[in-house]
Amino acid sequence: MSTDFVRVGHDELRAFIVRAFEAEGLPPSDALKVATLMAEADLQGSDGHGVIRLAPYIKRVQQGGINKTPNIRVIHERAASAVVHGDNGMGHLVVSHAVDLAIAKAKEAGVAWVGCRYSNHAGPASLYARKPLEHNMLGLYFAVGNANHLPPWGGMDMLLSTNPIAAGVPAGDEPPVVLDMATTVAAYGKVKVKAKRGEMMPEGWMIDRQGKPLTDPKRADEGFLLPIGEHKGYGLALMVGLLAGTLSGAAMGRDVIDFNADFKSTTNTGQAILVIDLSAFGDPADFKSRVDTLVRDIRDSAKLPGVDRIWLPGEQSHGKRQRYVQQGIPVPHAVMKDLAALSAQLKIAPLPTL
Amino acid sequence: MSTDFVRVGHDELRAFIVRAFEAEGLPPSDALKVATLMAEADLQGSDGHGVIRLAPYIKRVQQGGINKTPNIRVIHERAASAVVHGDNGMGHLVVSHAVDLAIAKAKEAGVAWVGCRYSNHAGPASLYARKPLEHNMLGLYFAVGNANHLPPWGGMDMLLSTNPIAAGVPAGDEPPVVLDMATTVAAYGKVKVKAKRGEMMPEGWMIDRQGKPLTDPKRADEGFLLPIGEHKGYGLALMVGLLAGTLSGAAMGRDVIDFNADFKSTTNTGQAILVIDLSAFGDPADFKSRVDTLVRDIRDSAKLPGVDRIWLPGEQSHGKRQRYVQQGIPVPHAVMKDLAALSAQLKIAPLPTL
Repeated sequence: MSTDFVRVGHDELRAFIVRAFEAEGLPPSDALKVATLMAEADLQGSDGHGVIRLAPYIKRVQQGGINKTPNIRVIHERAASAVVHGDNGMGHLVVSHAVDLAIAKAKEAGVAWVGCRYSNHAGPASLYARKPLEHNMLGLYFAVGNANHLPPWGGMDMLLSTNPIAAGVPAGDEPPVVLDMATTVAAYGKVKVKAKRGEMMPEGWMIDRQGKPLTDPKRADEGFLLPIGEHKGYGLALMVGLLAGTLSGAAMGRDVIDFNADFKSTTNTGQAILVIDLSAFGDPADFKSRVDTLVRDIRDSAKLPGVDRIWLPGEQSHGKRQRYVQQGIPVPHAVMKDLAALSAQLKIAPLPTL
Repeated sequence: MSTDFVRVGHDELRAFIVRAFEAEGLPPSDALKVATLMAEADLQGSDGHGVIRLAPYIKRVQQGGINKTPNIRVIHERAASAVVHGDNGMGHLVVSHAVDLAIAKAKEAGVAWVGCRYSNHAGPASLYARKPLEHNMLGLYFAVGNANHLPPWGGMDMLLSTNPIAAGVPAGDEPPVVLDMATTVAAYGKVKVKAKRGEMMPEGWMIDRQGKPLTDPKRADEGFLLPIGEHKGYGLALMVGLLAGTLSGAAMGRDVIDFNADFKSTTNTGQAILVIDLSAFGDPADFKSRVDTLVRDIRDSAKLPGVDRIWLPGEQSHGKRQRYVQQGIPVPHAVMKDLAALSAQLKIAPLPTL
């Protein structure tokens, strides 16, 4: 077992992130909202989208690429739909606003779709698809990735991003079924984690401009990601981009800003959330009991030779969440080093380890 | 070029299908609705879901597996949601009912989701995702496949189907972007087409119970389909099934009837349509113009060595539709032979070739 990480407490991690954003002038309530979601990302094992993003977020705030006091507002609205203008605030704030609005609308209309424009990177998609669960609702989330790493199928111009899809479906006694997937074989965040850990990528994640496998994550900018299912993943990435970006009035295609290279320009990131109220379709308890049955049928089904266990989407994250609350969240040494540098730079108390 | 097919006229194909269903006692207006959609499937090149399905549909009607005079009705309803009970009618009728209702609701609420229960196989998903386009709306469609050919990732029990996703997005001067994809590498309909044509399948479509590639489509019942992107496609197939099946109160998992083996039992097929009214999100003309730009940026982008053209989803179907209207629809000899046998059995005029 690798021990190239330390463990930090969930509360301590959140508090550290709060300190960083407050030091940069975000209102305390906004700093807390963002920090809560970022720490939750690490808590569920979404380590490509949690505190590893803190330094680049802070750099963007410092360089004027984020509005610290945005006027997040609804600019189009009907009974079951809305567009939220994020005013270039932190994406976590913009998307949370959209999800809360969608939940309120779905309670009345049965279903609601809320799109975001002038948002920013908001962390792992599953955070938002999960939010409706506690209201006996299910969530579907679509987002435009913040850097184009995917060409159309057969092409070399990176006009598309990893554009993720997430879905959260409540169960009864079982953990919820939570899917969170990039439409590429690997999310770019996973490439960054590999680079940070000094590990190589498996073949199939990326190819170079000659179409050959690219396995060194430090050479990632010489190639591009591969979509799942070849042309199908390309089609999915495009559709997600049309739904989250174009429909919301946000950037898509050539307009997407590479937030790894440019910390000043407004990204106009697009996201969209669909919320469905289970009670509009029958008895929620009956629905959840049928989900339980399905989950158990799948988990208990026959395995191929060499397979120990069949997992449901979200089950491994659910397990990590439970373990990390007890044991603390593992943070790689390389990330801790960045966070130590950040605490020195911002003159805030460092992140304590357990 | 293969010449193992003949060409038939679009109108003649539709009229033949009408004759077949009328001979079996479907009301003429219902026979026409089903025939129109089935012929449209062949017209756009969805040859796994068009007239190739006529003989099995008729067999199902004859054996009592389809209600010829269903009472298709809404059983749950809110401003932006509904559940349609299909009363075991032809799937084309049930889903059309749901799509029309979703379009009407989206006009008011901005967005609408309508699920179907006690429906049946309804042909290619794109037919229904495309329907909202003429109303300046976009459509997303989800369906539970009518036979389980997909195990959960790592498993051997076929608890899942090819559960397709389709999306139809209107453009301005360009053809609409229409995605229609099974969540498996190949749809089972494509396996059937290969079998009918006497062709082998490429590796990667199916594996057998030892996990080895299965390439003979006549041995399809000895193995199972593979999901796109490994665990990701499994997750997508499961989510589509939860949304189209479980949420609608339709069959999912172990409850799915194999309609290739059982022509009598009620399938309780589930489908769901999401319709989004573009005008609820801004100016539809502006949206469509941005889709045009994106489409052209993609089509004109740099190609990998050896690639002639970059396609948009739905562009090849769009081209076939235009060609087949002029040249007629290609129908393989093997399918024509089945249709000749059907016309003799039903004592209806045969399908004329061009």
